[in-house]
Amino acid sequence: MTGYTAPIDDLQFVLHDLLRISEADIPGYAEIDREVSHGALVEAGRLASNVLAPLNVVGDTEGCRFENGVVRTPAGFREAFDRIRLDGWTAIDCDPQDGGQGLPYLLHTVVQECFVSANMALQTYHGLTHGAYSAIRRHGTEAQRRTYLPKLARCDWTGTMNLTEPQCGTDLGLLRSRAEPQPDGSYRITGTKIFISAGDHDMAENVIHLVLARIPGAPEGIKGVSLFIVPRYLVGPDGAPGAANALRVGRIERKMGLHGSATCEMVYDGATGFLLGEAHKGMRAMFTMMNEARLGVGLQGYAVAEAAYQQAADWARTRLQGRAVDGPEAPELPADPIIVHPDIRRSLMEQRSFIEGARAFTLWGAMLIDRAQRMEDAQAHGLVSLLTPVIKGFLTDKGFEATVAAQQVLGGHGYVEDAGMSQFVRDARIAMIYEGANGVQALDLVGRKLALDGGAHVRGLLAEVKGFMASAAGDPDMEQRFLGPLGKAVADFETALGFFMTDGTKEPRAALAGATDFLHLTGHLCLGYLWARMARAAQGGESAFLRTKLATGRFYMARQLPATGLHLARILTGAGPVMALQAEAF
Amino acid sequence: MTGYTAPIDDLQFVLHDLLRISEADIPGYAEIDREVSHGALVEAGRLASNVLAPLNVVGDTEGCRFENGVVRTPAGFREAFDRIRLDGWTAIDCDPQDGGQGLPYLLHTVVQECFVSANMALQTYHGLTHGAYSAIRRHGTEAQRRTYLPKLARCDWTGTMNLTEPQCGTDLGLLRSRAEPQPDGSYRITGTKIFISAGDHDMAENVIHLVLARIPGAPEGIKGVSLFIVPRYLVGPDGAPGAANALRVGRIERKMGLHGSATCEMVYDGATGFLLGEAHKGMRAMFTMMNEARLGVGLQGYAVAEAAYQQAADWARTRLQGRAVDGPEAPELPADPIIVHPDIRRSLMEQRSFIEGARAFTLWGAMLIDRAQRMEDAQAHGLVSLLTPVIKGFLTDKGFEATVAAQQVLGGHGYVEDAGMSQFVRDARIAMIYEGANGVQALDLVGRKLALDGGAHVRGLLAEVKGFMASAAGDPDMEQRFLGPLGKAVADFETALGFFMTDGTKEPRAALAGATDFLHLTGHLCLGYLWARMARAAQGGESAFLRTKLATGRFYMARQLPATGLHLARILTGAGPVMALQAEAF
Repeated sequence: MTGYTAPIDDLQFVLHDLLRISEADIPGYAEIDREVSHGALVEAGRLASNVLAPLNVVGDTEGCRFENGVVRTPAGFREAFDRIRLDGWTAIDCDPQDGGQGLPYLLHTVVQECFVSANMALQTYHGLTHGAYSAIRRHGTEAQRRTYLPKLARCDWTGTMNLTEPQCGTDLGLLRSRAEPQPDGSYRITGTKIFISAGDHDMAENVIHLVLARIPGAPEGIKGVSLFIVPRYLVGPDGAPGAANALRVGRIERKMGLHGSATCEMVYDGATGFLLGEAHKGMRAMFTMMNEARLGVGLQGYAVAEAAYQQAADWARTRLQGRAVDGPEAPELPADPIIVHPDIRRSLMEQRSFIEGARAFTLWGAMLIDRAQRMEDAQAHGLVSLLTPVIKGFLTDKGFEATVAAQQVLGGHGYVEDAGMSQFVRDARIAMIYEGANGVQALDLVGRKLALDGGAHVRGLLAEVKGFMASAAGDPDMEQRFLGPLGKAVADFETALGFFMTDGTKEPRAALAGATDFLHLTGHLCLGYLWARMARAAQGGESAFLRTKLATGRFYMARQLPATGLHLARILTGAGPVMALQAEAF
Repeated sequence: MTGYTAPIDDLQFVLHDLLRISEADIPGYAEIDREVSHGALVEAGRLASNVLAPLNVVGDTEGCRFENGVVRTPAGFREAFDRIRLDGWTAIDCDPQDGGQGLPYLLHTVVQECFVSANMALQTYHGLTHGAYSAIRRHGTEAQRRTYLPKLARCDWTGTMNLTEPQCGTDLGLLRSRAEPQPDGSYRITGTKIFISAGDHDMAENVIHLVLARIPGAPEGIKGVSLFIVPRYLVGPDGAPGAANALRVGRIERKMGLHGSATCEMVYDGATGFLLGEAHKGMRAMFTMMNEARLGVGLQGYAVAEAAYQQAADWARTRLQGRAVDGPEAPELPADPIIVHPDIRRSLMEQRSFIEGARAFTLWGAMLIDRAQRMEDAQAHGLVSLLTPVIKGFLTDKGFEATVAAQQVLGGHGYVEDAGMSQFVRDARIAMIYEGANGVQALDLVGRKLALDGGAHVRGLLAEVKGFMASAAGDPDMEQRFLGPLGKAVADFETALGFFMTDGTKEPRAALAGATDFLHLTGHLCLGYLWARMARAAQGGESAFLRTKLATGRFYMARQLPATGLHLARILTGAGPVMALQAEAF
C-alpha cells in the first residue's frame, strides 16, 4: 500500500489561480497568500501522511468497541486526535475569542480534505464538533457560548447531531423524543436516537449532544421540534465536566465501513438539556449545522476518491501486465506497466478529472460561505444554499463511483482487504447516505432551492456561468474545447428548468421524478464551469503541472460533461414511466 | 430482513413467452414445457428460500476459517451443499452417462439464478465444479472422463480453476508454474497460485484443480502454457481418493465480501498432475471453462441485484416517511410508505428494468450455448462468443450499480450490516473483477470478438435485431415506445462500429480508449432489443403481470436506453483525451 500525499499543488492552484483568494475582497482573505497557504498545507499534509493515514487501516480492522457501556476507539486514535487538537487544526476558523485563529472557513476546508483523505473515520469526530460549534455560536445564549465554544473549538469536548430515531430519519416530523420543561429553565430529555456518529468515545473529556426533541404541547410535525444541548457530563460552575447526565449508549452499530467512527444508539432517560435557540424552531438551528455538514460530506466524497486514486495510479505505474497495443513501451521488462493500456488510462482520467473538478466546486462553495458570513452577502448565501445539495449529492455519488473505479484498477488485489481499496469503497459509501440521503438532496434542490427567493439563485448561477463564457470568448482553443461543451450543458440545464417550471408546476411528480437526474445535470454543469475557469487559469502555462491540468480539463469536457444530455432526456420523460406501476407490483 | 422468493413468473415468462423454448428446434427443449419448468423452479426456489438464503448472512459473518492447514466453511454450508448435490441440482445438464439428467444448459442456468440470489458464496463451489466438468468432458481422455466426470457432476468432488499467480492475472503469458514430465506420463507441478476460489474446503471428499503451468522447453508466453488436472487426493485404481497430493493451501484471503467462499493461495510442491488436452494449448481448454464461467458471472451480477431489489421493494412498501407530494396516500397512518415518492420509484424502476432485461439477456445467451453445443450451430456459437464479454461486463457493472441503489433505498439502515444490504453490495463487487476484470472483457469485445470470422457475428447480431424490428413494425404503440428508441440505439451502435473500422484500424488506441463505453453501448442495445421482444410478447395481455412487464419495458426504453448516445459520444472522442498525459503525470 502506497502512502497518502497531500495534493498541495492542486490545492494551491484552486486557491490562488482559480479562486484568486488573496485578491478577493473577503475579510481575512488578503492575508492568505501563496506562502501562507503553502505553509499550512505542508504541515497539514505531513500530519495526514505520517500520523493519520497509517492509522486508517487500524481503524478499519480494529473498529470501535463497546465494553461495559463505554466506547473505545481503535489503538492510536486518541494520540492522533490529540495531535490534531493540540496543533490547533480544529480551531483554524473559530473565533479568536474562543481560542480560534479566525482564519477563513475556506482554509479550514482545504485542511479537512487532507485529513479526510488520510483517515475519514477519525475526521468525523472533529468534523461534527465543528458543526456543533457553529450551531451554538449562531444560536446559543451568551452563557452557552461561553460555556461550550472554547471547549468545542479545541475539541477538548466533541459534539454530535441527534436527529434520527428508529421510526424516523428523513421525516423528522415523526420524532418522539420529548423534552419536559423544569422549574430551573432546563428540560428533561427522554427518547432513543440512532445512528449518532461519534456519539461516544474515549478521546475527549466531554461530549456535547445536540438533540432534537418535542416539548409537550408543541405543534405537531416538524414545526414542533426544538433543539437542546445535552452534555454527557453536566458542566459545573467552574466550567469543568461534573455529574454524569442521564444518558447512555445503548449499542454501537456494525457497519459496512467507517469502522473507526463510533455510530451509537443514544438513550436519553430524563437527561438534563438546555434549549438552543427558540422553542419549536429546532430545525432552523439544526440546519446551520446540517448545511455545513453537507458541504463537509461532499468533500468526503472526493477526498476518499483522491486517496484511492493515488493508490490506483501508483499500481498502474508499477504493475507489469501485457504490452502496449502499438508496441512494447518497456521492452527491458517482462511486460509493460498497465498504465500503457487505454482502458486503464480512461479510468484514471475519469477519476482525476472528477476529483479535481470536485475540489474546485467544494472550495468555491466554501468561499461562498465565507463571503456570505463575513460580508453578510445574501447573494452568496443564496447561491451556496442552492449548490449545497449538489455538492453533497453529486460529489458523493460520483466520488463513490470514482473510488470503485480506483479499486477496479487493482483487479483481484483491490478486492482483498490488504491493499486498503476495499476500505476506501466501504467508507465512501456512507457519504451518499448520511446528512440526508442523496435522493433527499435532489428533492431539496428541485422542490425547494430552485424556487427559493423567486428563483433568484438559479438565475444568479446562470448569470455567473454566462458572464464567464462571455469574458472567455475569442480564444479558438478555449471556445472549441471548453466553451462549446459548456454552452451545451447550459442549454440542457435551461431546458430542464423550463420543464420544471411548466410541466413540473402542473404535475409536481413530473419534476420530482427527474430530481436525481437534475442534481447530476447541475453537478456536471458546475464541474464543467469550474473546469473551463481552471483551463483559462492554466492556459499558456509552460509547466508540466499546468499542461496536465489543461489536458485533464479537456478530458472532462469531451467525455464527461456530455452526460447532461442523458440526464435531460430522462428528466423530460416526466412522471409517466416512473410512476406507471401500482405499489403492489414492486 | 425479508426472505428471498424465486421470481418464478418472470423466469417462466422469459423461457416460454420470450424464448418460446418448447417450440425451439433444439434437442431436449421440446420436453421443457411450462409445467416441467414450473415444477423445477418451485423446487429450486423452495431450496433457495428455505435453506440457502438463511445461510447467506452466516457465510458473511462467520466466513471461512483456515486452521491447521485445513479450510472450514461456515456452519451449515456443508449440509446445504449436500442438499444441493443429493437432490441432483448440480447435474441437471450433465451427461446421463455421468449420472446427469441431460437437460438443457438453459434449465441449469435458471436454477443457478435462484441459488446465486439466495447465496452467492455457496454457489461458487458448485458453479466452478460445473466449469471443471465441462472442461474435462470436452478435452479429457476417455480415462480422465471416466475417472472425474461422474464425481464432478454430482459434486462428490469439486473443481477449481488455477490461473492467477502473484506476478500475473490478466497476462497469463507471464506465469511461472512449471510442469516436469515424468516417465509414467504424469507431470510434477510446482508453483504458487493465488485467488483460487473454492480452492479448498470441507464439503467434498476431493478437490480437482485445473492448473495452468509451463512444460520445460515450451514456447515463451501464452503459447507455452498447458493445463493439468491436479487432484488434491490422487485417485486410486478403485476410483476412490487415495494418497494426498503434494499441494497445500498457503493462506486464505481476507476479502471485501463473498466471505463464505474460500479464496485460497495454492502451493504446488511437485504435485502430480495430468495433462488435460494438448501440451502448450492449455488456454484453449481453459477457455471452455472460462466462457461458461463468464456467463455465470454475468448471471451473478443481476442475481444478487434481484435479491437486493426484493429487500429494497419490501422496505419501500412498508417504511413510513413523509407524504406523497400530491396529498397523503395513507392518511390513516402517521406517514405514507416511501414508495409513494417519485425518486424512490425511479430507483426501484431502474433496478427492476435492468434486472429483468439482464435475465432475458443471460437466458438468451444460455439458449445460444445450447444451440451451439447440441446442434453444432457455428452461428450460435459465434454470436454467444461475441456476447459473452458483454454479458459478463455489462451485467456485473450494472448489477453492482443496481445493488448499490437497492442499498440506498434503506438509507442508514442499508449501511449497517443487520439488514444484509451491505453484504449484497460487497458480494456483488467481485463479479466485476473475477473471470477477467471488466476492462479485459471490453478489450476482448473490441480487440478480438468484433473482428472474429471477418465480423460475421456482429453482422449477425445486427441482422437479428433489424429482423425483429421489421417483423414488429406497424403497431403504433410498439413503434413509438419500443422500436423508435431501439432504432436510435442501433444507429449509435453502427456509428461506433464505423468508427472502430476506420479510425480504430488506423490507430488501435482510439478503439481501445472506447472499449468500455462500447461494451456498455452493446449491453444497452441487447437489453433494448430483448425488452422490445418482451414487450411484443406481453402486448395486449390483461394480467397485472403482463401489464407490469410492459410498463417496466417502457421505462427502460424511455429512460435507460438513451445512454447509448452518451457512450457513443465518448467513443468518438478517440484516444486523444484519454492518452494525453505522460505516465509520470498520474
